[in-house]
Amino acid sequence: MNNNDIISKAMKKTTAIILTALLVFTYSCKQGAEEGSDQKQDAIANAAKTDPLPSWNEGVTKKAIIDFVTDVTKAESETFIDIADRIATFDNDGNLWSEQPAYFQLFFAIDRIKALAPQHPEWKTEQPFKAVLENNMEELAQQGEHGLVELVMASHAGNTTEEFEAIVKEWLAAAKHPRFDRPYTDLVYQPMLELLDFLRANDFKTFIVSGGGIDFMRPWVEEVYGIPRDQVVGSIIVKEFVNEDGNPVIKRLGKLEFNNDKEGKPIGIQKFIGRKPVFASGNSDGDLPMLQWTASGDGLRFMLYLHHTDSTREWAYDRESHIGRLDKGLDEAKEKGWTVINMKEDWKVIYPFELAE
Amino acid sequence: MNNNDIISKAMKKTTAIILTALLVFTYSCKQGAEEGSDQKQDAIANAAKTDPLPSWNEGVTKKAIIDFVTDVTKAESETFIDIADRIATFDNDGNLWSEQPAYFQLFFAIDRIKALAPQHPEWKTEQPFKAVLENNMEELAQQGEHGLVELVMASHAGNTTEEFEAIVKEWLAAAKHPRFDRPYTDLVYQPMLELLDFLRANDFKTFIVSGGGIDFMRPWVEEVYGIPRDQVVGSIIVKEFVNEDGNPVIKRLGKLEFNNDKEGKPIGIQKFIGRKPVFASGNSDGDLPMLQWTASGDGLRFMLYLHHTDSTREWAYDRESHIGRLDKGLDEAKEKGWTVINMKEDWKVIYPFELAE
Repeated sequence: MNNNDIISKAMKKTTAIILTALLVFTYSCKQGAEEGSDQKQDAIANAAKTDPLPSWNEGVTKKAIIDFVTDVTKAESETFIDIADRIATFDNDGNLWSEQPAYFQLFFAIDRIKALAPQHPEWKTEQPFKAVLENNMEELAQQGEHGLVELVMASHAGNTTEEFEAIVKEWLAAAKHPRFDRPYTDLVYQPMLELLDFLRANDFKTFIVSGGGIDFMRPWVEEVYGIPRDQVVGSIIVKEFVNEDGNPVIKRLGKLEFNNDKEGKPIGIQKFIGRKPVFASGNSDGDLPMLQWTASGDGLRFMLYLHHTDSTREWAYDRESHIGRLDKGLDEAKEKGWTVINMKEDWKVIYPFELAE
Repeated sequence: MNNNDIISKAMKKTTAIILTALLVFTYSCKQGAEEGSDQKQDAIANAAKTDPLPSWNEGVTKKAIIDFVTDVTKAESETFIDIADRIATFDNDGNLWSEQPAYFQLFFAIDRIKALAPQHPEWKTEQPFKAVLENNMEELAQQGEHGLVELVMASHAGNTTEEFEAIVKEWLAAAKHPRFDRPYTDLVYQPMLELLDFLRANDFKTFIVSGGGIDFMRPWVEEVYGIPRDQVVGSIIVKEFVNEDGNPVIKRLGKLEFNNDKEGKPIGIQKFIGRKPVFASGNSDGDLPMLQWTASGDGLRFMLYLHHTDSTREWAYDRESHIGRLDKGLDEAKEKGWTVINMKEDWKVIYPFELAE
């Protein structure tokens, strides 16, 4: 399929993101692992008996969330929302799990290139693969967009959907985050897990709406977030159905079909969900069109930004960050009165493993 | 976006379908309305108390369905299927509702052109619109693919998602089927409604996987089939998110993005659901790749074809039909032992309104 223009356009956006991610990666990895040590697990365990959001400190953020859910689910409420309309959408990177020092999917791409290297002796001398194999991130960044497209496609495509799923699962089972030395799926946010549960307990249908690859997320989000894989909206590469000798497979081709970021998010929501959300949660300017789209509906709506303010327990970044930049979104949130989570102040713990420590 | 090749390819398939539909329409409309009059409603009402499929006659088809559901849902069964894997996909046209004498969406397109005509005085003399306005289907058919693309795009695009939804709802509330003189949504199959309910009662998640337009189906499938709009997989036109003056809209552009038919069905299933179905139901060769994809998984699977055999109560057609042709699929079903519904023999009633007569 000659789909070059649309793909090239989408690629430019995506690879720009990856490029900046790599650059940040180069410098951020020097940052040490300074784990927060607020051990409030007993208090949280007790609170959980009566409190739907036990890992959230009392305050305006928590109150705003609970008030909204209470208001729209009471049958006698003027702002009651029908169950079918209770659609809640969540960005993933930096919103349900961490995204520093680089998008976790980029670590996957790099590890995948290294795993495939024995089958590609030519990569020892060919860029951008040489740079990856030599851990030379500065050189990799200098390979520019073209090199990064090669990297992502060599690591994500050229296999079947079943093969790719197995590869992702295998990677998640073995890979460790460079700062925390834990599986990446340990680095999900405990307060957001509670928020997802709270919404579902009130008959909201929870969706992921992420710029990340849909097939990278689906193998694990059901177990980790309780979100079924058909409730995941993400970026998509072109696929082909092939039925040879009665053994049908779906092949993953090396072209981007849909970039579910920025203006792509409302489009992805329309495409996959077909209904405007009443609750949307994100952490970056890439989520702003999703929040604007959500805000544009009738009746009571909830727009939620997560502001990364905790340089000790997680990371602190916003307007100047190359990953998860939150600049225009922060201004618009203040202007429109949207709720902004102050991670440092609002969250008792960041990760689930802190509860067991 | 210059997406021409892929669109042109998809268009050719789609318009070929529409073209044949129009041709059939020209001749089939002469067929009279001979309603079946099997009034077995008392028996069905009594049976419903203990029978999950009261509108189905006892026989191998009904037994096969019930045996499958029983086998895969008993915890102690060797063929038990986890709830998360209980994905059931249903074609729509000719499978959940009728598709004769032409796809109902084509009647919508024609009616829409007529409704828009006052704003387009030039259509009185311009083809293909002139042919539609003069009810000259033979002339319309002679306009070929190009004319039909113009027709579909003029009737389906150039508005926002909210506007299109309102248009579809308004049409459904007013339009009548030419043979039955009833709203199109009355022409859903009562036995299939029972099958959908039966599967959902056994924790299956039911999806529509149709070549029809996703935005044409979503406004009504929830009410009519109990299928939420995010569980509808269909053909998609290109959309654009525009946020002017803080009033964001999604515009429907006049280009096909995805044709969810034939090999497109497994691709659509992967894209939207991300999991291989264990139960798939269709009525034409266009559903064959979906059934092959479903059959290719491990464990017990159920592949179901609906064979239109009832020339009195509905329509009888298969290998030679231009709409819903069932030829290769019928052969493969016999060869592989898939279940084939004989509409005339297996169904006590066709439409829900027969129960009230």
